[in-house]
Amino acid sequence: MAAGTTSVEAALEELRVFPYEDLGFAKIDHHRALRDCLPEVILGEGKTPDQVVEIGRRLVERSGRLLVTRTNRACFESLRQHVGDALYHETARAITVNRRQEAPQAGVVVLCAGTSDLPVAEEAAVTAELMSNAVQRLYDVGVAGIHRLLDHLPLLREARVLVVVAGMEGALPSVVAGLVSVPVIAVPTSVGYGASFQGLAPLLTMLNSCAPGVAVVNIDNGYGAGYLAAIINRLALSEPQE
Amino acid sequence: MAAGTTSVEAALEELRVFPYEDLGFAKIDHHRALRDCLPEVILGEGKTPDQVVEIGRRLVERSGRLLVTRTNRACFESLRQHVGDALYHETARAITVNRRQEAPQAGVVVLCAGTSDLPVAEEAAVTAELMSNAVQRLYDVGVAGIHRLLDHLPLLREARVLVVVAGMEGALPSVVAGLVSVPVIAVPTSVGYGASFQGLAPLLTMLNSCAPGVAVVNIDNGYGAGYLAAIINRLALSEPQE
Amino acid sequence: MAAGTTSVEAALEELRVFPYEDLGFAKIDHHRALRDCLPEVILGEGKTPDQVVEIGRRLVERSGRLLVTRTNRACFESLRQHVGDALYHETARAITVNRRQEAPQAGVVVLCAGTSDLPVAEEAAVTAELMSNAVQRLYDVGVAGIHRLLDHLPLLREARVLVVVAGMEGALPSVVAGLVSVPVIAVPTSVGYGASFQGLAPLLTMLNSCAPGVAVVNIDNGYGAGYLAAIINRLALSEPQE
Amino acid sequence: MAAGTTSVEAALEELRVFPYEDLGFAKIDHHRALRDCLPEVILGEGKTPDQVVEIGRRLVERSGRLLVTRTNRACFESLRQHVGDALYHETARAITVNRRQEAPQAGVVVLCAGTSDLPVAEEAAVTAELMSNAVQRLYDVGVAGIHRLLDHLPLLREARVLVVVAGMEGALPSVVAGLVSVPVIAVPTSVGYGASFQGLAPLLTMLNSCAPGVAVVNIDNGYGAGYLAAIINRLALSEPQE
Amino acid sequence: MAAGTTSVEAALEELRVFPYEDLGFAKIDHHRALRDCLPEVILGEGKTPDQVVEIGRRLVERSGRLLVTRTNRACFESLRQHVGDALYHETARAITVNRRQEAPQAGVVVLCAGTSDLPVAEEAAVTAELMSNAVQRLYDVGVAGIHRLLDHLPLLREARVLVVVAGMEGALPSVVAGLVSVPVIAVPTSVGYGASFQGLAPLLTMLNSCAPGVAVVNIDNGYGAGYLAAIINRLALSEPQE
Amino acid sequence: MAAGTTSVEAALEELRVFPYEDLGFAKIDHHRALRDCLPEVILGEGKTPDQVVEIGRRLVERSGRLLVTRTNRACFESLRQHVGDALYHETARAITVNRRQEAPQAGVVVLCAGTSDLPVAEEAAVTAELMSNAVQRLYDVGVAGIHRLLDHLPLLREARVLVVVAGMEGALPSVVAGLVSVPVIAVPTSVGYGASFQGLAPLLTMLNSCAPGVAVVNIDNGYGAGYLAAIINRLALSEPQE
Amino acid sequence: MAAGTTSVEAALEELRVFPYEDLGFAKIDHHRALRDCLPEVILGEGKTPDQVVEIGRRLVERSGRLLVTRTNRACFESLRQHVGDALYHETARAITVNRRQEAPQAGVVVLCAGTSDLPVAEEAAVTAELMSNAVQRLYDVGVAGIHRLLDHLPLLREARVLVVVAGMEGALPSVVAGLVSVPVIAVPTSVGYGASFQGLAPLLTMLNSCAPGVAVVNIDNGYGAGYLAAIINRLALSEPQE
Amino acid sequence: MAAGTTSVEAALEELRVFPYEDLGFAKIDHHRALRDCLPEVILGEGKTPDQVVEIGRRLVERSGRLLVTRTNRACFESLRQHVGDALYHETARAITVNRRQEAPQAGVVVLCAGTSDLPVAEEAAVTAELMSNAVQRLYDVGVAGIHRLLDHLPLLREARVLVVVAGMEGALPSVVAGLVSVPVIAVPTSVGYGASFQGLAPLLTMLNSCAPGVAVVNIDNGYGAGYLAAIINRLALSEPQE
Repeated sequence: MAAGTTSVEAALEELRVFPYEDLGFAKIDHHRALRDCLPEVILGEGKTPDQVVEIGRRLVERSGRLLVTRTNRACFESLRQHVGDALYHETARAITVNRRQEAPQAGVVVLCAGTSDLPVAEEAAVTAELMSNAVQRLYDVGVAGIHRLLDHLPLLREARVLVVVAGMEGALPSVVAGLVSVPVIAVPTSVGYGASFQGLAPLLTMLNSCAPGVAVVNIDNGYGAGYLAAIINRLALSEPQE
Repeated sequence: MAAGTTSVEAALEELRVFPYEDLGFAKIDHHRALRDCLPEVILGEGKTPDQVVEIGRRLVERSGRLLVTRTNRACFESLRQHVGDALYHETARAITVNRRQEAPQAGVVVLCAGTSDLPVAEEAAVTAELMSNAVQRLYDVGVAGIHRLLDHLPLLREARVLVVVAGMEGALPSVVAGLVSVPVIAVPTSVGYGASFQGLAPLLTMLNSCAPGVAVVNIDNGYGAGYLAAIINRLALSEPQE
Repeated sequence: MAAGTTSVEAALEELRVFPYEDLGFAKIDHHRALRDCLPEVILGEGKTPDQVVEIGRRLVERSGRLLVTRTNRACFESLRQHVGDALYHETARAITVNRRQEAPQAGVVVLCAGTSDLPVAEEAAVTAELMSNAVQRLYDVGVAGIHRLLDHLPLLREARVLVVVAGMEGALPSVVAGLVSVPVIAVPTSVGYGASFQGLAPLLTMLNSCAPGVAVVNIDNGYGAGYLAAIINRLALSEPQE
Repeated sequence: MAAGTTSVEAALEELRVFPYEDLGFAKIDHHRALRDCLPEVILGEGKTPDQVVEIGRRLVERSGRLLVTRTNRACFESLRQHVGDALYHETARAITVNRRQEAPQAGVVVLCAGTSDLPVAEEAAVTAELMSNAVQRLYDVGVAGIHRLLDHLPLLREARVLVVVAGMEGALPSVVAGLVSVPVIAVPTSVGYGASFQGLAPLLTMLNSCAPGVAVVNIDNGYGAGYLAAIINRLALSEPQE
Repeated sequence: MAAGTTSVEAALEELRVFPYEDLGFAKIDHHRALRDCLPEVILGEGKTPDQVVEIGRRLVERSGRLLVTRTNRACFESLRQHVGDALYHETARAITVNRRQEAPQAGVVVLCAGTSDLPVAEEAAVTAELMSNAVQRLYDVGVAGIHRLLDHLPLLREARVLVVVAGMEGALPSVVAGLVSVPVIAVPTSVGYGASFQGLAPLLTMLNSCAPGVAVVNIDNGYGAGYLAAIINRLALSEPQE
Repeated sequence: MAAGTTSVEAALEELRVFPYEDLGFAKIDHHRALRDCLPEVILGEGKTPDQVVEIGRRLVERSGRLLVTRTNRACFESLRQHVGDALYHETARAITVNRRQEAPQAGVVVLCAGTSDLPVAEEAAVTAELMSNAVQRLYDVGVAGIHRLLDHLPLLREARVLVVVAGMEGALPSVVAGLVSVPVIAVPTSVGYGASFQGLAPLLTMLNSCAPGVAVVNIDNGYGAGYLAAIINRLALSEPQE
Repeated sequence: MAAGTTSVEAALEELRVFPYEDLGFAKIDHHRALRDCLPEVILGEGKTPDQVVEIGRRLVERSGRLLVTRTNRACFESLRQHVGDALYHETARAITVNRRQEAPQAGVVVLCAGTSDLPVAEEAAVTAELMSNAVQRLYDVGVAGIHRLLDHLPLLREARVLVVVAGMEGALPSVVAGLVSVPVIAVPTSVGYGASFQGLAPLLTMLNSCAPGVAVVNIDNGYGAGYLAAIINRLALSEPQE
Repeated sequence: MAAGTTSVEAALEELRVFPYEDLGFAKIDHHRALRDCLPEVILGEGKTPDQVVEIGRRLVERSGRLLVTRTNRACFESLRQHVGDALYHETARAITVNRRQEAPQAGVVVLCAGTSDLPVAEEAAVTAELMSNAVQRLYDVGVAGIHRLLDHLPLLREARVLVVVAGMEGALPSVVAGLVSVPVIAVPTSVGYGASFQGLAPLLTMLNSCAPGVAVVNIDNGYGAGYLAAIINRLALSEPQE
């Protein structure tokens, strides 16, 4: 009945190396930056520019990288005062800082079905780029004009992992997954009206995909999809994690 | 303020010619048979064989045609005792009688995404056939293997109206509607599990189709789709209704 | 096992003639204009006037027709600077351009249940008119005052296809479909409050219609309904598509 | 601040006269029988015949009336051993006992849209009859064949209160309420399939009725509708309750 | 098979006397005013002051009464220019005109659970008052302090019909219906937050009431409840409708 | 940045004393028994009698107590072969073993609204009893007959914690919480039909309770409610946990 | 059959001592203050500053305590003119007054998963503090960085009751409940986007918790959770209520 | 405007090599087997043993591998008559055939939260094994006893990809994803009752995970998760697909 004592000690060793910083109202988790090359992301929505600056500066200092999502230009202007090399991505509504000099790795392709899906697709692309990937984009290739997609089949076939963003009926991931043999990360968007129910329709479509190889993230979660694409693409080079 | 008096009288003239038959527990509506070539359909589910026989005989007598949906072989055996020329369609779970000699009209194509959608697709096909259409079937052409569908593009391009049946993610109607210029009647099915929620997923998919020209009927409603296809295809020959 | 090779080649022939134009952020699909007499529609919602002008000009140049939905007067003013013959439809919130001289074809009737449903009904009517139909309107004929509908029965009986728009309980399409023998395209609207749940109530009502011949489009989708009505009415004149 | 003391004492006087009987597993409420002429109803579903007999006998003894709903013939046979004058209503799936000699009062009309709605409609009718009403029935008059309903307009116009039962799209109450000026009690049924979602569709339809004068009860709740019709019709004769 | 000819003619006689007025964008239904003492109600939401004035003037002219719901003071000011005796009800957000001199009839009681439910409760009360009822109000008597309700038991027992308005958990109608023997009209409100889901919670509560005698109207539908209360209370005096 | 090292070591000390037993297909957690006096509960549903016996024997051996919920008599018979002092609770559908000799503590009261809620109420009562509480029961006191509840007010006022079980509209917890000043644990049940939606209606009702002091557990979760009542009642005697 | 007469009299004695104050538009319930040390709470949302001042002053006068939730600084400024010792809690969006001199009791711990959950967590903490508890806070300890939680295990183990606030996936209460043996009050928040559906996701998560000892309150209901924690913690000192 | 002609020809070259076999009622897709090492999977549910045998034999013949999911022992017995080396996996309810001699690749770990999740976890494991992976299993490590999970932290840290299966509250994937830096495939199960709503609760939990790196598949979709794990793990060895 002495089960696990030894291994819990091993767990302790692991946990002990997880550093975090306590700001009182927030506990900034730095351990992820050590392992993932990407520190904790800041969800800009619902935070004041001061809060973003406060947390953002500390993250940049320790990790040399930063990602703020669902933000705006005003917040970016505040941050740039303190972090001069910050960049603002208009369509993606994201701020990034990247002080690392790593050669980007090919293999990630981001697609979207319509022009209204662009903000989410760009959020995914910007995230993957920050994590040292060279991203190829293929936009406005919804299934209602399938020839636009087939026209780019060679591009699809070169990918190691694809992020496929779609609102309304959300059928694009199924069609794409039927044309490739690698993982497809499907992102439903809240684009649409009526029976789209703020993205419920494409979410259900993607979860029910009849094509194997489709994994789904939350509605409008471009960041999550880009992150997943990056850690999957990283496997192609790496040894098992440690 | 005397609005409408005259036209309500005209309405009366119309309504007067709508015959129906009162069985006490049911009022059989015969006016539809006169105009549509198809009498009121009997939904077999939840009716005893005796009830089906009672209503079915009267409908056949007056219209020469009969359609019983969601029924079974036992019910068919009962009916055949009284209506010797009744036919049973195993996959469609339907009974038909057709005593009219009309040349079937080409133009209706019925597609389905997977083999599990066959009962609903066949219900649509049998309905349209009973309404004097020659129906072409294209089954198991789901979007996960898009080459199976593209392989039959000429068939799609010959149609005047298409019925497209799909469960799970329900993406087939959007793809098909992108390849043709005629009406596509989309039928979601309750095939699937989990987040399909008994057909809610493909229903929402189809309602949100980004391809114009898609109309949707109720989940598993093969009859409704076949009926619609028939009255649309009839337009290609006809003068305005009267 | 050499299945399909030949027919996929035929498909290629078809696909090759599908032209589209790549603007970077959008891929304008021109193939539809060739076949449907209507180019890709522009959903105005969420687009800047500049984007609408950019896409709109190209569509008009190539097809001679244009439809912008869910737009506003400001956007129209911008467009008119470049496309002098553009028209704005206040109630429908739509912009149209039509440079073709085709005689409009009778056969389409658009109904709505209440005055709040007018924008959606008008969007349907404007769409069908742009596709060369002469549209008859019958508004504010909800089922709570059935005499207002019966008063116009002759008009209903002359239609080849009807678009029926209703919010709240959405019962009008069922009643109308019981009075005619031609296709009824039902459009639920988000008009109402409380248990209407932004149009879910009339959507479910219409999907469950006990009258055969009813097809449903998305909530508030007047454009989709008008488009469907047009391609159905076109069948009355045409040979099979090609 | 001495608010309410006196009136709470008055409340006490009221409450004191509310008798009930404690069986251990159940507390039979007899006060309702004194005032409503109908004792507590027994919901047969999920009770053993023994439980129904035990509770049913006591209710009959004290009130001379009994209603068991959602029961079956087996349960009825058990009860008849102890209550010889019990009656079984096959379609309504209900047991009644009525030892009072009251002249039934006219004014209640029960309608249903389709034959599948009969069990619920009959449960309503049987309930109202047990509460001393003469009930007129009008069945199978769904809105898809509106002439069947209009044919009986005089009957509708004689009613003091109507119970309207409908499944599927549930549009009948709205149409009926538009033709009369008295209360319409709408009962959605779980009849249908697919997007009916076990009665959710007609429930929402009825709640959103655009015709004033429609009140809704739970899905399949024929008893509740019949009870309401009875206490409304009673008002036509009565003085204020006491 | 000549069924119904005669009775459809009778229906015609009825329908012929249903007058309405066609404004183009609206068909004002005057028949209701003749029978119900209340003309068609104007739902102010989504109408311009001009539209309200236009329709409102005509309704007042023909019927001497007017009810505009979900409106505001600005709209009232516009109307008062043309209809000098219009009144504005602040809490109810309603405009009324009443030129009839009828003695109000006692019997209607309106209750609400909390102070946030007041607008809906007042809309019900104002409606019933306009239909010639003397309404008694009992507000802020939610079930969490049941002594406040019991304190007014005599008032409840004098009612012929009660309107019970409640948001959040919506339990008040069940408790009230257990204390009286007359109809209870339950009105769920969208008051609350979180799992209230804009009134879905109290709506379901009321539909599932274990107390007989409860009828439900749409969320926030004070007008519908007041109208129902009025036509029920009218029965206490009247002969059958005609 | 050395944050937490020491306290994680403290956590280790805690975790090290959490024993569990690995059966391959299951990991029996014994640490709870040491602290809570109740070992892990066995959810009988979906387990074979053999599995229940296997896990049950080990739990009894180490803790002297056992609770199996949602089980049946057949499973009990199998267990009794190996654990002679097991008891079966028919209504609660539960098996218990209790080898401890502790005096039961007063303070827990379990109420239910209707007789159909008995199985869930009994599951709660049996659980609390097994955890050394003397439970008082008050059944069939739904809000439609409020006098039955008020009749037992003294019993309610003696409680330290109450479990209130209700299906259908689920209003009982709100009323009870308004009469006491101690915690009320509300348990919705799946009893009901139609718009109860398998317990969703009472669940929402309870979450929206306007009375403070109401906490909610899952639908039909009598065990969870009884467990909570027991650990709350234990506080009345105890020092802070350790 | 004279059941309950005596005990209803006892109920009367209880009810008679429930004082409340009738302001016309509101009935202020003072009985709770006598028993709970906390008067009726004022939900600021949807009330004017005048209403808050009017009700707030009376509550403070009689009970010496006040809690206004979901309010803002403007409303606070109005109140402070009349109640000089009122305090405003920025993050919690709450106003409190506390004129009692009671030593706070240890035992309550409030946790939250992310910084966006702070307003709800603070509302809970402020409520419990007003009810004479010394509250310990542990914020930003979501399950995605479990070491931040384990780091504070000793704090968790000292609690008599815990309030655990979480949005998005809402998993924190389950993890916490697995580490302690005392009641965990779980509060879902509407923080998140997409498939969070305004807090539905964490609400369902918490209701389905596999750890015993978890009770759930409404989405964003910090007040309810703090109140519950206070009355549970009070049990540790008290005799049974009276 | 000659866009895409060349690349569509390239697409043709691709599509031409996609072989499939037409059985009439089904079109067996063999192209996937060529590329993925796994042919089309057979969903056993709703197919007769004859259909499974017919399709299964052809798939084995061409690809040397077979997977039938959601099947039973009877179906297996039929298949074994024709395919002697078929294996039945009792817990996973799956049939496999594997005639390839490939060394299994390490890197895939499958976890589940409770014993009721075993069938889905095993379906995932069996699928990944058939696709040449050596799978490590870690079962019954739900978050309510977090020490059981921490005890196996080294195993988690060795994985290249993890499949995490959980029902009820579905919190395990978030906790696991916080401990690793590789992709986590989350599978909700329909295990649970009440507010689990057949798996909706864990599905939403997983979609809202606050830990990055979580991708979700359909409820109970063990096959999909195992397939994804396999194609992700394959990347660690491979060159870009072709």
